[in-house]
Amino acid sequence: MIVWINGRRVSTIDHRDRGLQYGDGLFETMCVRRGAVRLIDYHLDRFQQGCRRLQIEAPPERQLRDELGQAAALRVSGVIKLILTRGVGARGYRPSGRERTTRILSIAALLRAQGRSNDQAVIVRMCRMKLGINESLAGLKTLNRLESVLARSEWRDKRIMEGLLRDADGNIVCGTMSNLFLRRGNVLMTPLLDRCGVAGVMRRWVLTQAPRLGLKAALRRVSLQDLQGAEEVFLTNALSGPISVGEIRHGNQRLRPALMATAAALRERLDQL
Amino acid sequence: MIVWINGRRVSTIDHRDRGLQYGDGLFETMCVRRGAVRLIDYHLDRFQQGCRRLQIEAPPERQLRDELGQAAALRVSGVIKLILTRGVGARGYRPSGRERTTRILSIAALLRAQGRSNDQAVIVRMCRMKLGINESLAGLKTLNRLESVLARSEWRDKRIMEGLLRDADGNIVCGTMSNLFLRRGNVLMTPLLDRCGVAGVMRRWVLTQAPRLGLKAALRRVSLQDLQGAEEVFLTNALSGPISVGEIRHGNQRLRPALMATAAALRERLDQL
Repeated sequence: MIVWINGRRVSTIDHRDRGLQYGDGLFETMCVRRGAVRLIDYHLDRFQQGCRRLQIEAPPERQLRDELGQAAALRVSGVIKLILTRGVGARGYRPSGRERTTRILSIAALLRAQGRSNDQAVIVRMCRMKLGINESLAGLKTLNRLESVLARSEWRDKRIMEGLLRDADGNIVCGTMSNLFLRRGNVLMTPLLDRCGVAGVMRRWVLTQAPRLGLKAALRRVSLQDLQGAEEVFLTNALSGPISVGEIRHGNQRLRPALMATAAALRERLDQL
Repeated sequence: MIVWINGRRVSTIDHRDRGLQYGDGLFETMCVRRGAVRLIDYHLDRFQQGCRRLQIEAPPERQLRDELGQAAALRVSGVIKLILTRGVGARGYRPSGRERTTRILSIAALLRAQGRSNDQAVIVRMCRMKLGINESLAGLKTLNRLESVLARSEWRDKRIMEGLLRDADGNIVCGTMSNLFLRRGNVLMTPLLDRCGVAGVMRRWVLTQAPRLGLKAALRRVSLQDLQGAEEVFLTNALSGPISVGEIRHGNQRLRPALMATAAALRERLDQL
């Protein structure tokens, strides 16, 4: 792993950084293919939206693009993580407004599981943990990720690739590190992320592709019944692209969506990017 | 400020620390009086509960007490902050179980506002931000504090000391950095913290004192009507002790609880600790 903090080749941060003290910051995890960041515009867009909503000053876009480009050029394929915190602050929750942000950019090899862009369907499970509803933070990829950590700690079985999370009202929202799509007929459903969850860049890309595959995209509250009625289920994240779900474990129940064609068609389109 | 990280006089942490990456950790903010940590047993108790619930290995209690005692002995009065993170981890939300925790202990002077142990009543406001409901994290003082940061960013008026937070269902839960008590007759009410909020050590101490003041403690869901019907309202936190609330601003509404006797009696008892 190579890391730059505020453009310098160091690897430690001040313990007073609000990123550590309060999780006061954002991050992006990006896929590098052929020396470039895939879906970079979507990543930068979400990143800047997050900065606006947290009232953190975003670095100039030009600078971000330069730094990301230089890092990506170091590898044929890999993963870039960009963290931005509000920076070192005085004590207390309220930002003074005079903090200087901390920018942590790292590039590493893809993990084997992340490199997958294949046709094998995965097994997922329903998590017990429920996502808290907070409209102020919904959709953002903030550094407050304890819910994901605890949900991902619920199982150790390596054959289970992901866990699905519900909100306090029982709606299915997303995976611990992925977004969820259900297809039934020509309707491609994905959960609304206005109350919790992270709005993934790959989710956004899939939504742009739906019409080209003859599908009608529908952003909705998704129930367990919707999941049971789906003909095809797949997950998305920035690194792996669309991944077909072959089995969903919920207590003793086993759902086995029969189809995988949409995810396969999307992977093909993604490979052409 | 003096800081020790894992017992050494350094002040930076590895950028891969899960405390920064995910807010995967806990903290305690403790009041030092006459060279000792006030309510140290309650702090250690909550800290260890938090470790259990996050499945983070707590440092041995003997070691914590030694380190806290040595730090506290450096000052007649002050504030100690103890942060414990799960430590540096591999990539991905799931802890491997092999992480070694990071322990950050710092001691500093009390800020002027924190030193207050006086009879002046403060002004508080109702925040717009709603707390997310998550039973897995409720009550804990985790490093995921963006809700507090955003709530505390809602106002800049220095005369307003604190903001009150409601959950998604409209129940009043706590302040951004304090717990809430309402008294009506001989009933001392404080919001239940089983779904969100931080269970403060000073709140716990106040609950132990209620019978001695002839009050019946009641942990309940607290509504705006309860607040309107309260004869006395006060806030607690580990540093300031009980603080009387003289005015609550909610839109154009102004609530002015008439009484301050319970908070005053509690402060007197606290000073004798």
